[in-house]
Amino acid sequence: MNLNYPSRLLEAAVNEFATLPGIGHKTALRLVLHMLRQDSAALETFGNTIIRLGTELRFCKVCRNVCDEDICPICSDKRRDQSIICVVENIKDIMIIENTQQYRGVYHVLGGIISPMDGMGPSDLNISNLEERVKKGGIKELILALSATMEGDTTNFYLYRRLSPFKMEFSTLARGVSIGDELEYTDEITLGRSILNRIPFNAS
Amino acid sequence: MNLNYPSRLLEAAVNEFATLPGIGHKTALRLVLHMLRQDSAALETFGNTIIRLGTELRFCKVCRNVCDEDICPICSDKRRDQSIICVVENIKDIMIIENTQQYRGVYHVLGGIISPMDGMGPSDLNISNLEERVKKGGIKELILALSATMEGDTTNFYLYRRLSPFKMEFSTLARGVSIGDELEYTDEITLGRSILNRIPFNAS
Repeated sequence: MNLNYPSRLLEAAVNEFATLPGIGHKTALRLVLHMLRQDSAALETFGNTIIRLGTELRFCKVCRNVCDEDICPICSDKRRDQSIICVVENIKDIMIIENTQQYRGVYHVLGGIISPMDGMGPSDLNISNLEERVKKGGIKELILALSATMEGDTTNFYLYRRLSPFKMEFSTLARGVSIGDELEYTDEITLGRSILNRIPFNAS
Repeated sequence: MNLNYPSRLLEAAVNEFATLPGIGHKTALRLVLHMLRQDSAALETFGNTIIRLGTELRFCKVCRNVCDEDICPICSDKRRDQSIICVVENIKDIMIIENTQQYRGVYHVLGGIISPMDGMGPSDLNISNLEERVKKGGIKELILALSATMEGDTTNFYLYRRLSPFKMEFSTLARGVSIGDELEYTDEITLGRSILNRIPFNAS
């Protein structure tokens, strides 16, 4: 549907929203028309929040997580184990892992994954910063928590090759049948690996 | 999923996006994280466009369509028939009808529809403005192009009762089987009405 907009400003707003992932022009128009029902103060707050994302939001100097200070709340939390670093692709992955409340170490955000198809090589990722952190010493374990895809495996392998000279353990997320999944609907690669890497049964 | 945000600003941005219709916190987070990859100039443009929706966008003094001037491009277009007014619920309906390129009259935006369930009565709609326009004279036809729902019918009936003292024709959109539809999948109320209101067959 190629609509004629009665206002250039309305069209500009629709085009801005349509740049967001998963939002086409039709959805963008619906969102903008919804916003028109709000008063100008609400729109000013919304607009300023977006502007501040560009001007005020900072990235943690240690792990590259987003934060409001120089150092993120996780890196500056002395109760957390600073000797274990969990390497993730992006900020959302930190939030998802934090949400499990099972991890008490710190993180490192790569900002992506090695993917020649998308033109992402090792130099496009925050790998040098990770190397600096490891070089300083005191790191006992590096958890590679990347996607279980070809690109994730490639990146894991690259990181291992580059960082294995430093004395520390490398680990990766356990792969296997998801809790709650029926075997019938588990893909065969996952199921095959789960049998090979079977774990002792714990009856307690 | 109830995530802990590493930054209050990030959380504020996610909450702003989550106020939009059809966007939950999970989608909002995805949108905001996408925006973080843009530079601050792009974010400033985006934010300012939203702010300007509240400060610069105007509503046509005649028909209440959105526009950049006092009078919208449709009302100020002298080639359009100013004696036919098509009454619509909202701005989007104007864009959709304009897109058909079949209508050369002007519009009037009610800003909603009479719906006691949603607390919308006649006084919440731009009906007085419509009455003023009609009162000035020169209007030959009023097309009631509201939703084919109970609320739409109620509003049509209300408008007819209130505006019928003024000498003009009232019409409404043709109802019937959609072009391209198979009879098997047409609802029975539409089909029943289509038989009652059958039209002469035109073989040309």
